Amino acid sequence: MKKPPIGRDTKLCMSLSARPGNFGSRFQNHLYEALGLDYVYKSFTTTDLPAAIGGIRALGIRGCAISMPFKEACIALIDELMPSASAIDSVNTIVNDDGLLRGYNTDYAAVVQLLETHALPTRTRFVVRGSGGMAKAVVAALRDSGFGDGLIVARNAAAGCKLAATYGFDWRPEFDVAFKAGLLVNVTPIGMVEGADSEALAFPREAIEAAHTVFDVVARPPETPLIRAARAAGKPVITGAEVIVLQALEQFVLYTQRQPTPEQVQAAAAFALAGG
Amino acid sequence: MKKPPIGRDTKLCMSLSARPGNFGSRFQNHLYEALGLDYVYKSFTTTDLPAAIGGIRALGIRGCAISMPFKEACIALIDELMPSASAIDSVNTIVNDDGLLRGYNTDYAAVVQLLETHALPTRTRFVVRGSGGMAKAVVAALRDSGFGDGLIVARNAAAGCKLAATYGFDWRPEFDVAFKAGLLVNVTPIGMVEGADSEALAFPREAIEAAHTVFDVVARPPETPLIRAARAAGKPVITGAEVIVLQALEQFVLYTQRQPTPEQVQAAAAFALAGG
Repeated sequence: MKKPPIGRDTKLCMSLSARPGNFGSRFQNHLYEALGLDYVYKSFTTTDLPAAIGGIRALGIRGCAISMPFKEACIALIDELMPSASAIDSVNTIVNDDGLLRGYNTDYAAVVQLLETHALPTRTRFVVRGSGGMAKAVVAALRDSGFGDGLIVARNAAAGCKLAATYGFDWRPEFDVAFKAGLLVNVTPIGMVEGADSEALAFPREAIEAAHTVFDVVARPPETPLIRAARAAGKPVITGAEVIVLQALEQFVLYTQRQPTPEQVQAAAAFALAGG
Repeated sequence: MKKPPIGRDTKLCMSLSARPGNFGSRFQNHLYEALGLDYVYKSFTTTDLPAAIGGIRALGIRGCAISMPFKEACIALIDELMPSASAIDSVNTIVNDDGLLRGYNTDYAAVVQLLETHALPTRTRFVVRGSGGMAKAVVAALRDSGFGDGLIVARNAAAGCKLAATYGFDWRPEFDVAFKAGLLVNVTPIGMVEGADSEALAFPREAIEAAHTVFDVVARPPETPLIRAARAAGKPVITGAEVIVLQALEQFVLYTQRQPTPEQVQAAAAFALAGG
Protein backbone atom coordinates (compact mmCIF):
# COMPACT_ATOMS: atom_id res chain seq x y z
CA MET A 1 0.00 0.00 0.00
CA LYS A 2 1.49 3.32 -1.05
CA LYS A 3 1.49 6.26 1.34
CA PRO A 4 -0.63 9.09 -0.14
CA PRO A 5 0.93 12.54 -0.73
CA ILE A 6 0.89 14.76 2.38
CA GLY A 7 -2.37 16.72 2.55
CA ARG A 8 -5.23 17.85 4.73
CA ASP A 9 -5.88 14.34 6.10
CA THR A 10 -2.25 13.58 6.91
CA LYS A 11 -1.66 13.26 10.66
CA LEU A 12 1.42 14.92 12.12
CA CYS A 13 3.34 13.31 14.97
CA MET A 14 6.34 15.01 16.50
CA SER A 15 8.88 15.14 19.29
CA LEU A 16 9.96 17.86 21.69
CA SER A 17 13.38 17.94 23.27
CA ALA A 18 16.18 20.37 24.02
CA ARG A 19 18.45 18.58 21.56
CA PRO A 20 16.33 16.78 18.96
CA GLY A 21 17.74 13.68 17.33
CA ASN A 22 16.79 11.89 14.13
CA PHE A 23 15.94 8.43 15.50
CA GLY A 24 12.25 9.11 16.02
CA SER A 25 11.71 10.78 12.64
CA ARG A 26 13.52 8.01 10.78
CA PHE A 27 11.86 5.16 12.70
CA GLN A 28 8.29 6.47 12.54
CA ASN A 29 8.42 7.77 8.95
CA HIS A 30 9.93 4.47 7.79
CA LEU A 31 7.02 2.56 9.33
CA TYR A 32 4.45 5.00 7.89
CA GLU A 33 5.90 4.30 4.44
CA ALA A 34 6.03 0.54 5.02
CA LEU A 35 2.40 0.40 6.17
CA GLY A 36 1.13 3.05 3.74
CA LEU A 37 -0.15 5.23 6.59
CA ASP A 38 -1.07 8.87 6.00
CA TYR A 39 1.18 10.20 8.77
CA VAL A 40 4.31 12.29 8.91
CA TYR A 41 6.75 12.67 11.83
CA LYS A 42 9.16 15.47 12.62
CA SER A 43 11.27 16.45 15.63
CA PHE A 44 11.12 19.92 17.19
CA THR A 45 12.69 21.86 19.99
CA THR A 46 11.18 24.78 21.90
CA THR A 47 11.96 27.40 24.50
CA ASP A 48 8.26 27.79 25.36
CA LEU A 49 6.81 24.46 26.46
CA PRO A 50 3.30 25.71 27.37
CA ALA A 51 2.88 27.33 23.92
CA ALA A 52 4.29 24.25 22.22
CA ILE A 53 1.82 21.96 24.02
CA GLY A 54 -0.92 24.49 23.31
CA GLY A 55 0.03 24.26 19.64
CA ILE A 56 -0.23 20.45 19.71
CA ARG A 57 -3.78 20.83 21.02
CA ALA A 58 -4.80 23.70 18.71
CA LEU A 59 -3.37 22.12 15.57
CA GLY A 60 -4.64 18.62 16.26
CA ILE A 61 -1.13 17.14 16.19
CA ARG A 62 -1.73 13.44 16.81
CA GLY A 63 1.14 12.62 19.12
CA CYS A 64 4.34 13.94 20.60
CA ALA A 65 7.39 12.22 22.03
CA ILE A 66 8.75 14.14 25.02
CA SER A 67 12.45 14.09 25.85
CA MET A 68 14.80 15.93 28.17
CA PRO A 69 14.18 18.36 29.81
CA PHE A 70 10.37 18.36 29.36
CA LYS A 71 9.32 14.96 30.78
CA GLU A 72 8.16 16.31 34.14
CA ALA A 73 7.27 19.87 33.13
CA CYS A 74 4.70 18.73 30.56
CA ILE A 75 2.59 16.91 33.18
CA ALA A 76 0.84 20.10 34.31
CA LEU A 77 0.01 20.94 30.69
CA ILE A 78 -1.82 17.74 29.72
CA ASP A 79 -5.19 16.30 30.68
CA GLU A 80 -4.62 12.77 31.87
CA LEU A 81 -1.71 10.72 33.20
CA MET A 82 -1.82 7.07 32.12
CA PRO A 83 -0.46 4.30 34.41
CA SER A 84 2.92 3.98 32.65
CA ALA A 85 3.53 7.70 33.26
CA SER A 86 2.05 7.98 36.73
CA ALA A 87 4.25 5.03 37.82
CA ILE A 88 7.25 7.34 37.55
CA ASP A 89 5.71 10.83 37.32
CA SER A 90 7.35 11.26 33.95
CA VAL A 91 5.82 11.53 30.48
CA ASN A 92 7.73 10.64 27.32
CA THR A 93 4.68 10.37 25.03
CA ILE A 94 1.57 12.50 24.55
CA VAL A 95 -1.37 11.16 22.57
CA ASN A 96 -3.95 13.69 21.36
CA ASP A 97 -7.48 12.29 21.06
CA ASP A 98 -9.59 15.16 19.68
CA GLY A 99 -7.98 17.69 21.98
CA LEU A 100 -7.69 15.44 25.04
CA LEU A 101 -3.99 15.02 25.80
CA ARG A 102 -2.97 11.79 27.54
CA GLY A 103 0.53 11.18 28.89
CA TYR A 104 2.30 7.81 28.71
CA ASN A 105 5.80 6.59 29.43
CA THR A 106 6.92 4.11 26.82
CA ASP A 107 10.45 3.91 28.31
CA TYR A 108 8.99 2.42 31.46
CA ALA A 109 6.70 0.16 29.43
CA ALA A 110 9.58 -0.98 27.21
CA VAL A 111 11.81 -1.90 30.17
CA VAL A 112 8.96 -3.83 31.83
CA GLN A 113 8.47 -5.74 28.58
CA LEU A 114 12.19 -6.43 28.07
CA LEU A 115 12.57 -7.78 31.61
CA GLU A 116 9.71 -10.13 30.84
CA THR A 117 10.86 -11.31 27.41
CA HIS A 118 14.42 -11.86 28.67
CA ALA A 119 12.87 -14.00 31.43
CA LEU A 120 15.07 -12.84 34.28
CA PRO A 121 14.16 -14.46 37.62
CA THR A 122 12.84 -11.74 39.93
CA ARG A 123 15.05 -12.94 42.76
CA THR A 124 18.04 -11.68 40.76
CA ARG A 125 19.95 -9.02 42.66
CA PHE A 126 20.53 -5.91 40.54
CA VAL A 127 22.71 -2.83 40.45
CA VAL A 128 21.54 0.22 38.51
CA ARG A 129 24.15 2.91 37.76
CA GLY A 130 22.62 6.34 37.28
CA SER A 131 19.99 8.57 38.85
CA GLY A 132 18.43 10.57 35.99
CA GLY A 133 15.00 10.33 34.39
CA MET A 134 15.75 7.11 32.53
CA ALA A 135 17.15 5.55 35.73
CA LYS A 136 13.82 6.28 37.37
CA ALA A 137 12.01 4.44 34.55
CA VAL A 138 14.37 1.46 34.88
CA VAL A 139 14.22 1.23 38.68
CA ALA A 140 10.43 1.55 38.74
CA ALA A 141 10.13 -1.09 36.02
CA LEU A 142 12.38 -3.43 38.03
CA ARG A 143 10.37 -2.92 41.19
CA ASP A 144 7.01 -3.25 39.40
CA SER A 145 8.26 -6.41 37.68
CA GLY A 146 8.90 -7.96 41.11
CA PHE A 147 12.62 -7.40 41.58
CA GLY A 148 13.04 -6.75 45.30
CA ASP A 149 16.78 -6.82 45.92
CA GLY A 150 18.70 -3.98 44.32
CA LEU A 151 21.15 -1.16 44.68
CA ILE A 152 21.34 2.27 43.06
CA VAL A 153 24.86 3.50 42.41
CA ALA A 154 25.06 7.23 41.70
CA ARG A 155 27.64 9.89 42.42
CA ASN A 156 24.88 12.49 42.74
CA ALA A 157 23.95 11.77 46.37
CA ALA A 158 20.72 13.77 46.44
CA ALA A 159 19.29 12.22 43.27
CA GLY A 160 20.63 8.73 44.03
CA CYS A 161 19.29 8.70 47.60
CA LYS A 162 15.91 9.98 46.51
CA LEU A 163 15.58 7.47 43.69
CA ALA A 164 16.54 4.57 45.98
CA ALA A 165 14.21 5.72 48.75
CA THR A 166 11.28 6.26 46.38
CA TYR A 167 11.34 2.67 45.17
CA GLY A 168 12.61 0.99 48.32
CA PHE A 169 16.20 0.16 47.37
CA ASP A 170 19.64 1.01 48.74
CA TRP A 171 21.99 3.67 47.47
CA ARG A 172 25.79 3.84 47.28
CA PRO A 173 27.95 6.57 45.74
CA GLU A 174 30.39 4.05 44.18
CA PHE A 175 30.10 0.58 42.73
CA ASP A 176 31.48 -2.31 44.79
CA VAL A 177 32.01 -5.80 43.35
CA ALA A 178 31.23 -7.20 46.80
CA PHE A 179 27.54 -6.55 46.14
CA LYS A 180 27.47 -9.60 43.81
CA ALA A 181 24.78 -8.46 41.41
CA GLY A 182 23.26 -10.89 38.94
CA LEU A 183 21.92 -8.04 36.79
CA LEU A 184 24.07 -5.03 35.96
CA VAL A 185 22.26 -2.03 34.48
CA ASN A 186 24.01 1.04 33.11
CA VAL A 187 21.83 4.15 32.89
CA THR A 188 24.68 6.69 32.73
CA PRO A 189 26.17 8.16 29.53
CA ILE A 190 29.27 5.98 29.96
CA GLY A 191 30.02 4.31 26.63
CA MET A 192 27.89 6.72 24.62
CA VAL A 193 29.21 7.77 21.21
CA GLU A 194 30.71 11.28 21.22
CA GLY A 195 30.51 11.31 25.04
CA ALA A 196 33.41 12.03 27.38
CA ASP A 197 33.54 8.35 28.42
CA SER A 198 32.75 6.71 25.08
CA GLU A 199 35.53 4.14 25.55
CA ALA A 200 34.92 3.50 29.25
CA LEU A 201 33.27 0.45 30.83
CA ALA A 202 30.30 1.27 33.07
CA PHE A 203 31.14 -1.74 35.32
CA PRO A 204 34.47 -3.43 36.07
CA ARG A 205 35.28 -6.66 34.15
CA GLU A 206 35.24 -8.62 37.41
CA ALA A 207 31.58 -7.59 37.98
CA ILE A 208 30.66 -8.48 34.41
CA GLU A 209 32.23 -11.93 34.86
CA ALA A 210 30.24 -12.45 38.07
CA ALA A 211 26.90 -11.25 36.64
CA HIS A 212 24.20 -13.28 34.97
CA THR A 213 22.87 -10.59 32.60
CA VAL A 214 24.11 -7.15 31.50
CA PHE A 215 21.74 -4.36 30.51
CA ASP A 216 23.01 -1.13 28.93
CA VAL A 217 20.49 1.62 28.26
CA VAL A 218 22.96 3.48 26.00
CA ALA A 219 21.69 3.05 22.44
CA ARG A 220 24.43 4.73 20.44
CA PRO A 221 26.53 2.90 19.50
CA PRO A 222 24.24 -0.15 19.51
CA GLU A 223 27.27 -2.15 20.74
CA THR A 224 28.73 -0.20 23.67
CA PRO A 225 31.99 -1.19 25.36
CA LEU A 226 29.89 -2.70 28.19
CA ILE A 227 27.76 -4.77 25.78
CA ARG A 228 30.88 -5.91 23.90
CA ALA A 229 32.57 -6.95 27.16
CA ALA A 230 29.45 -8.81 28.30
CA ARG A 231 29.13 -10.66 25.00
CA ALA A 232 32.86 -11.54 25.17
CA ALA A 233 32.22 -12.98 28.64
CA GLY A 234 29.32 -15.05 27.27
CA LYS A 235 26.64 -13.16 29.18
CA PRO A 236 23.09 -12.52 27.95
CA VAL A 237 22.59 -8.82 27.21
CA ILE A 238 19.76 -6.31 26.96
CA THR A 239 20.83 -3.38 24.78
CA GLY A 240 19.86 0.26 24.62
CA ALA A 241 18.96 -0.30 20.98
CA GLU A 242 16.30 -2.78 22.16
CA VAL A 243 14.92 -0.17 24.57
CA ILE A 244 14.85 2.71 22.12
CA VAL A 245 13.26 0.60 19.38
CA LEU A 246 10.67 -0.96 21.68
CA GLN A 247 9.67 2.38 23.22
CA ALA A 248 9.41 3.95 19.76
CA LEU A 249 7.31 1.01 18.60
CA GLU A 250 4.97 1.55 21.56
CA GLN A 251 4.66 5.19 20.47
CA PHE A 252 3.93 4.11 16.90
CA VAL A 253 1.13 1.81 18.10
CA LEU A 254 -0.31 4.51 20.38
CA TYR A 255 -0.33 7.09 17.55
CA THR A 256 -1.60 4.86 14.74
CA GLN A 257 -3.30 1.95 16.54
CA ARG A 258 -1.60 -0.32 14.02
CA GLN A 259 0.80 -3.17 14.78
CA PRO A 260 3.65 -3.57 12.29
CA THR A 261 5.20 -6.99 11.61
CA PRO A 262 8.52 -7.88 13.31
CA GLU A 263 10.20 -7.60 9.89
CA GLN A 264 8.82 -4.07 9.39
CA VAL A 265 10.01 -3.10 12.89
CA GLN A 266 13.47 -4.54 12.21
CA ALA A 267 13.80 -2.66 8.92
CA ALA A 268 12.66 0.63 10.50
CA ALA A 269 15.01 0.11 13.46
CA ALA A 270 17.99 -0.60 11.19
CA PHE A 271 17.22 2.51 9.13
CA ALA A 272 16.75 4.67 12.24
CA LEU A 273 19.84 3.40 14.12
CA ALA A 274 21.97 4.08 11.04
CA GLY A 275 20.75 7.67 10.92
CA GLY A 276 22.95 9.52 13.39
CA MET B 1 19.60 16.83 -5.57
CA LYS B 2 17.68 14.40 -3.41
CA LYS B 3 15.59 15.65 -0.49
CA PRO B 4 17.01 14.20 2.77
CA PRO B 5 14.78 12.09 5.05
CA ILE B 6 12.68 14.19 7.44
CA GLY B 7 14.59 14.88 10.65
CA ARG B 8 15.60 17.48 13.19
CA ASP B 9 16.76 19.99 10.55
CA THR B 10 13.66 19.68 8.36
CA LYS B 11 11.64 22.90 8.28
CA LEU B 12 7.86 22.61 8.59
CA CYS B 13 5.57 24.96 6.67
CA MET B 14 1.81 24.74 7.06
CA SER B 15 -1.56 26.30 6.41
CA LEU B 16 -4.47 27.24 8.66
CA SER B 17 -8.03 27.42 7.42
CA ALA B 18 -11.51 26.39 8.44
CA ARG B 19 -11.67 23.94 5.54
CA PRO B 20 -8.14 22.92 4.55
CA GLY B 21 -7.51 21.91 0.96
CA ASN B 22 -4.69 19.94 -0.60
CA PHE B 23 -3.39 22.47 -3.13
CA GLY B 24 -0.80 24.03 -0.83
CA SER B 25 0.56 20.72 0.46
CA ARG B 26 0.85 19.27 -3.04
CA PHE B 27 2.37 22.40 -4.60
CA GLN B 28 4.92 23.12 -1.88
CA ASN B 29 5.97 19.51 -1.24
CA HIS B 30 6.37 18.94 -4.99
CA LEU B 31 8.76 21.90 -5.21
CA TYR B 32 10.67 20.79 -2.08
CA GLU B 33 11.25 17.44 -3.79
CA ALA B 34 12.19 19.04 -7.12
CA LEU B 35 14.73 21.38 -5.50
CA GLY B 36 15.94 18.87 -2.89
CA LEU B 37 14.99 21.19 -0.02
CA ASP B 38 14.75 19.87 3.55
CA TYR B 39 11.19 21.14 4.08
CA VAL B 40 7.80 19.54 4.58
CA TYR B 41 4.37 21.16 4.21
CA LYS B 42 1.06 20.19 5.75
CA SER B 43 -2.37 21.83 6.06
CA PHE B 44 -4.14 22.23 9.40
CA THR B 45 -7.36 23.57 10.79
CA THR B 46 -7.96 24.94 14.29
CA THR B 47 -10.66 26.19 16.62
CA ASP B 48 -8.12 28.12 18.71
CA LEU B 49 -6.25 30.61 16.52
CA PRO B 50 -4.19 32.25 19.30
CA ALA B 51 -2.88 28.86 20.49
CA ALA B 52 -2.22 27.77 16.89
CA ILE B 53 -0.18 30.92 16.17
CA GLY B 54 1.52 30.49 19.56
CA GLY B 55 2.44 26.96 18.46
CA ILE B 56 3.95 28.26 15.20
CA ARG B 57 6.17 30.55 17.28
CA ALA B 58 7.04 27.99 19.97
CA LEU B 59 7.79 25.18 17.53
CA GLY B 60 9.75 27.30 15.07
CA ILE B 61 7.39 26.45 12.21
CA ARG B 62 8.91 28.33 9.26
CA GLY B 63 5.78 29.62 7.57
CA CYS B 64 2.02 29.43 7.51
CA ALA B 65 -0.54 30.14 4.82
CA ILE B 66 -3.65 31.73 6.32
CA SER B 67 -7.06 31.19 4.74
CA MET B 68 -10.68 31.87 5.64
CA PRO B 69 -11.72 32.83 8.30
CA PHE B 70 -8.39 33.76 9.91
CA LYS B 71 -6.96 36.40 7.54
CA GLU B 72 -7.96 39.39 9.67
CA ALA B 73 -8.00 37.72 13.10
CA CYS B 74 -4.35 36.70 12.89
CA ILE B 75 -3.15 40.29 12.53
CA ALA B 76 -3.30 40.96 16.28
CA LEU B 77 -1.28 37.78 16.92
CA ILE B 78 1.76 38.52 14.77
CA ASP B 79 4.62 40.98 15.08
CA GLU B 80 4.84 42.90 11.83
CA LEU B 81 2.55 43.67 8.90
CA MET B 82 4.38 43.86 5.56
CA PRO B 83 3.20 46.25 2.79
CA SER B 84 1.28 43.59 0.81
CA ALA B 85 -0.78 42.80 3.93
CA SER B 86 -1.18 46.33 5.26
CA ALA B 87 -2.48 47.38 1.82
CA ILE B 88 -5.64 45.39 2.52
CA ASP B 89 -5.45 44.69 6.28
CA SER B 90 -5.47 41.00 5.52
CA VAL B 91 -2.75 38.37 5.99
CA ASN B 92 -2.60 35.18 3.96
CA THR B 93 1.00 34.29 4.75
CA ILE B 94 3.06 34.32 7.94
CA VAL B 95 6.83 34.00 7.81
CA ASN B 96 8.64 33.08 11.03
CA ASP B 97 12.16 34.46 11.30
CA ASP B 98 13.54 33.12 14.60
CA GLY B 99 10.29 33.84 16.45
CA LEU B 100 9.48 37.12 14.69
CA LEU B 101 6.22 36.61 12.79
CA ARG B 102 5.74 38.78 9.69
CA GLY B 103 2.43 38.95 7.80
CA TYR B 104 2.23 39.16 4.00
CA ASN B 105 -0.58 38.94 1.47
CA THR B 106 0.51 36.98 -1.57
CA ASP B 107 -3.00 37.11 -3.09
CA TYR B 108 -2.67 40.86 -3.39
CA ALA B 109 0.89 40.54 -4.66
CA ALA B 110 -0.13 37.90 -7.21
CA VAL B 111 -2.97 40.01 -8.62
CA VAL B 112 -0.69 43.06 -8.90
CA GLN B 113 1.82 40.92 -10.79
CA LEU B 114 -0.80 39.36 -13.10
CA LEU B 115 -2.25 42.78 -14.02
CA GLU B 116 1.28 43.81 -14.96
CA THR B 117 2.25 40.71 -16.96
CA HIS B 118 -1.06 40.74 -18.84
CA ALA B 119 -0.28 44.38 -19.75
CA LEU B 120 -3.77 45.78 -19.30
CA PRO B 121 -3.95 49.54 -19.91
CA THR B 122 -4.80 51.22 -16.61
CA ARG B 123 -7.49 53.34 -18.29
CA THR B 124 -9.50 50.11 -18.72
CA ARG B 125 -12.85 50.36 -16.96
CA PHE B 126 -13.43 47.31 -14.70
CA VAL B 127 -16.26 45.54 -12.91
CA VAL B 128 -15.48 43.34 -9.92
CA ARG B 129 -18.21 40.95 -8.76
CA GLY B 130 -17.89 40.03 -5.09
CA SER B 131 -17.17 41.68 -1.76
CA GLY B 132 -15.29 39.10 0.34
CA GLY B 133 -11.67 38.97 1.42
CA MET B 134 -10.36 38.02 -2.02
CA ALA B 135 -12.42 40.82 -3.61
CA LYS B 136 -10.64 43.24 -1.30
CA ALA B 137 -7.26 41.93 -2.51
CA VAL B 138 -8.35 42.28 -6.16
CA VAL B 139 -9.85 45.77 -5.81
CA ALA B 140 -6.84 47.05 -3.86
CA ALA B 141 -4.48 45.54 -6.43
CA LEU B 142 -6.44 47.24 -9.25
CA ARG B 143 -6.35 50.60 -7.51
CA ASP B 144 -2.66 50.31 -6.57
CA SER B 145 -1.85 49.27 -10.15
CA GLY B 146 -3.38 52.53 -11.38
CA PHE B 147 -6.87 51.47 -12.45
CA GLY B 148 -9.10 54.45 -11.58
CA ASP B 149 -12.42 53.68 -13.21
CA GLY B 150 -14.29 50.75 -11.71
CA LEU B 151 -17.44 49.36 -10.22
CA ILE B 152 -18.03 46.84 -7.43
CA VAL B 153 -21.07 44.62 -7.96
CA ALA B 154 -22.20 42.83 -4.82
CA ARG B 155 -25.56 41.75 -3.46
CA ASN B 156 -24.30 42.23 0.09
CA ALA B 157 -24.92 45.98 0.31
CA ALA B 158 -22.95 46.57 3.51
CA ALA B 159 -19.83 44.75 2.34
CA GLY B 160 -20.08 46.01 -1.24
CA CYS B 161 -20.54 49.64 -0.24
CA LYS B 162 -17.70 49.50 2.25
CA LEU B 163 -15.32 47.87 -0.22
CA ALA B 164 -16.14 50.42 -2.93
CA ALA B 165 -15.84 53.35 -0.55
CA THR B 166 -12.55 52.13 0.92
CA TYR B 167 -10.82 52.09 -2.46
CA GLY B 168 -12.73 54.95 -4.12
CA PHE B 169 -14.97 53.09 -6.52
CA ASP B 170 -18.73 52.84 -7.11
CA TRP B 171 -21.01 50.07 -5.93
CA ARG B 172 -24.14 48.52 -7.46
CA PRO B 173 -26.17 45.57 -6.15
CA GLU B 174 -26.62 44.07 -9.66
CA PHE B 175 -24.55 43.93 -12.81
CA ASP B 176 -25.60 46.13 -15.72
CA VAL B 177 -24.20 45.72 -19.24
CA ALA B 178 -24.61 49.44 -19.73
CA PHE B 179 -21.50 50.00 -17.60
CA LYS B 180 -19.38 48.85 -20.60
CA ALA B 181 -16.48 47.32 -18.70
CA GLY B 182 -13.28 46.41 -20.53
CA LEU B 183 -12.20 44.13 -17.67
CA LEU B 184 -14.64 41.73 -16.02
CA VAL B 185 -13.50 40.17 -12.74
CA ASN B 186 -15.38 37.41 -10.95
CA VAL B 187 -14.54 37.06 -7.26
CA THR B 188 -17.69 35.16 -6.25
CA PRO B 189 -17.99 31.35 -6.00
CA ILE B 190 -20.02 31.29 -9.24
CA GLY B 191 -18.58 28.56 -11.49
CA MET B 192 -16.76 26.82 -8.66
CA VAL B 193 -16.67 23.02 -8.73
CA GLU B 194 -19.13 21.44 -6.26
CA GLY B 195 -20.69 24.87 -5.65
CA ALA B 196 -24.38 25.70 -5.99
CA ASP B 197 -23.68 27.69 -9.18
CA SER B 198 -21.00 25.48 -10.71
CA GLU B 199 -22.60 25.72 -14.17
CA ALA B 200 -23.55 29.40 -14.01
CA LEU B 201 -21.83 32.29 -15.80
CA ALA B 202 -20.66 35.09 -13.50
CA PHE B 203 -21.31 37.67 -16.24
CA PRO B 204 -23.83 37.67 -19.13
CA ARG B 205 -22.55 36.65 -22.58
CA GLU B 206 -23.27 40.12 -23.90
CA ALA B 207 -20.89 41.63 -21.34
CA ILE B 208 -18.22 39.05 -22.17
CA GLU B 209 -18.53 39.91 -25.87
CA ALA B 210 -18.16 43.62 -25.07
CA ALA B 211 -15.16 43.20 -22.73
CA HIS B 212 -11.48 43.26 -23.57
CA THR B 213 -10.24 40.84 -20.88
CA VAL B 214 -11.96 38.40 -18.51
CA PHE B 215 -10.49 37.53 -15.12
CA ASP B 216 -11.96 34.72 -12.99
CA VAL B 217 -10.52 34.18 -9.51
CA VAL B 218 -12.19 30.76 -9.21
CA ALA B 219 -9.39 28.18 -9.51
CA ARG B 220 -11.33 24.94 -9.45
CA PRO B 221 -12.04 23.91 -12.11
CA PRO B 222 -9.09 25.63 -13.85
CA GLU B 223 -11.49 26.25 -16.78
CA THR B 224 -14.67 27.74 -15.29
CA PRO B 225 -17.80 28.40 -17.42
CA LEU B 226 -16.77 32.08 -17.47
CA ILE B 227 -13.25 31.34 -18.69
CA ARG B 228 -14.59 28.90 -21.31
CA ALA B 229 -17.09 31.50 -22.57
CA ALA B 230 -14.39 34.18 -22.72
CA ARG B 231 -12.01 31.90 -24.63
CA ALA B 232 -14.86 31.00 -27.02
CA ALA B 233 -15.39 34.72 -27.61
CA GLY B 234 -11.68 35.15 -28.35
CA LYS B 235 -10.96 37.23 -25.26
CA PRO B 236 -7.69 37.21 -23.31
CA VAL B 237 -8.23 35.63 -19.87
CA ILE B 238 -6.62 35.67 -16.43
CA THR B 239 -7.52 32.49 -14.57
CA GLY B 240 -7.90 31.60 -10.90
CA ALA B 241 -5.33 28.86 -11.48
CA GLU B 242 -2.82 31.58 -12.38
CA VAL B 243 -3.65 33.44 -9.16
CA ILE B 244 -3.46 30.42 -6.88
CA VAL B 245 -0.20 29.20 -8.41
CA LEU B 246 1.43 32.61 -8.37
CA GLN B 247 0.44 33.34 -4.77
CA ALA B 248 1.65 29.88 -3.70
CA LEU B 249 4.92 30.47 -5.54
CA GLU B 250 5.34 33.77 -3.65
CA GLN B 251 4.84 31.81 -0.42
CA PHE B 252 7.40 29.23 -1.50
CA VAL B 253 9.97 31.96 -2.17
CA LEU B 254 9.22 33.69 1.15
CA TYR B 255 9.61 30.41 3.08
CA THR B 256 12.67 29.02 1.31
CA GLN B 257 14.27 32.10 -0.30
CA ARG B 258 14.79 29.94 -3.38
CA GLN B 259 13.44 30.63 -6.88
CA PRO B 260 12.34 27.54 -8.80
CA THR B 261 12.54 27.42 -12.62
CA PRO B 262 9.35 28.03 -14.66
CA GLU B 263 9.38 24.33 -15.58
CA GLN B 264 9.53 23.31 -11.89
CA VAL B 265 6.65 25.69 -11.11
CA GLN B 266 4.60 24.32 -14.00
CA ALA B 267 5.14 20.72 -12.89
CA ALA B 268 4.23 21.53 -9.26
CA ALA B 269 1.15 23.46 -10.38
CA ALA B 270 -0.06 20.64 -12.61
CA PHE B 271 0.42 18.15 -9.76
CA ALA B 272 -1.32 20.43 -7.24
CA LEU B 273 -4.26 21.38 -9.48
CA ALA B 274 -4.89 17.69 -10.22
CA GLY B 275 -5.06 16.94 -6.51
CA GLY B 276 -8.62 17.81 -5.50
